[in-house]
Amino acid sequence: MAELEKLEKRIETRALFDISYGLYIVSSRKKDKLNGQIANAVMQITGEPACLAVCLNKANLTPECVDESGVIGISVLEQDVPMTFIGQFGFKCGRDLDKFADVTWEEGVSGAPLVTDWSLSVIDGRIVRREDVFTHVLYVVEVTGSRKLKDGIPLTYADYHLIKKGKSPKTAPTFAFNTLEPKK
Amino acid sequence: MAELEKLEKRIETRALFDISYGLYIVSSRKKDKLNGQIANAVMQITGEPACLAVCLNKANLTPECVDESGVIGISVLEQDVPMTFIGQFGFKCGRDLDKFADVTWEEGVSGAPLVTDWSLSVIDGRIVRREDVFTHVLYVVEVTGSRKLKDGIPLTYADYHLIKKGKSPKTAPTFAFNTLEPKK
Repeated sequence: MAELEKLEKRIETRALFDISYGLYIVSSRKKDKLNGQIANAVMQITGEPACLAVCLNKANLTPECVDESGVIGISVLEQDVPMTFIGQFGFKCGRDLDKFADVTWEEGVSGAPLVTDWSLSVIDGRIVRREDVFTHVLYVVEVTGSRKLKDGIPLTYADYHLIKKGKSPKTAPTFAFNTLEPKK
Repeated sequence: MAELEKLEKRIETRALFDISYGLYIVSSRKKDKLNGQIANAVMQITGEPACLAVCLNKANLTPECVDESGVIGISVLEQDVPMTFIGQFGFKCGRDLDKFADVTWEEGVSGAPLVTDWSLSVIDGRIVRREDVFTHVLYVVEVTGSRKLKDGIPLTYADYHLIKKGKSPKTAPTFAFNTLEPKK
């Protein structure tokens, strides 16, 4: 880290925006309290055994739940998901309301709750590594269950930004969403 | 891990295919030897300071270079990249040839080599964490430099699979590529 400080960084932020992501509900539980949030930083990192890397902001409630229960659920959102649904999980805090009250969900093999509304697939697993990275926590998740719910096109983070700007992809609903910003 | 083994996993692999990725050249150096490989497991995990998570197969030469030099480069491939170019970096081993011999590249702030051909953006940085995860290595990279080279549409892993199957996206070249498989 000492060496790093000697380097003068030259970072053009829009270059980082060229990295591609999907959009997911990442969920967990803290005893009987279920919670979930919108996240884009999810990727598969190994095949045998299947593991994912998932990164969450420490300020959020979901990593608190993950740290307590050791389990995590991922719902892969479909391109047709309404922005109101994303808003329910992405821009409200589970400390103030029960995000699972009005959604359909199931329990994964690991015990993690999995939202099935507007989702193409659900994946769940147990935390096998946890790394603090500045403002965020990076989890390595060994997958214990995954299930394809239906065929369709996954929502990408790029689609999501287009929708937010009012330039909707063909199949996506338009929803005025100007005053809200994603957490990340 | 003991608890994990008690769980009977129920994994439907095609559910994992719904996770979205881009496609990248991940590069590094081992003294004067430059090397790079195709990878899809790249994501930004923090904003301040900007960090990426990058995952590579331990069997490859690139993580050897990363482990020695402590630096890593990322080139974000564009949708128009020819499959022959991907083949040069993805299906050949840097132990047998110099992958950088016929490409245009520049040196990043960190000293990592960055391929600029068929790339929308280049990003480089220094390794701040390294985790062994079964067959792969997961790196946390603090970004030291990033540069937007040109506007365009990033190649997604989904596009790449469509091209491989001969179902090309509008703007992508078709190239018969049936006998080769990606490393991951």
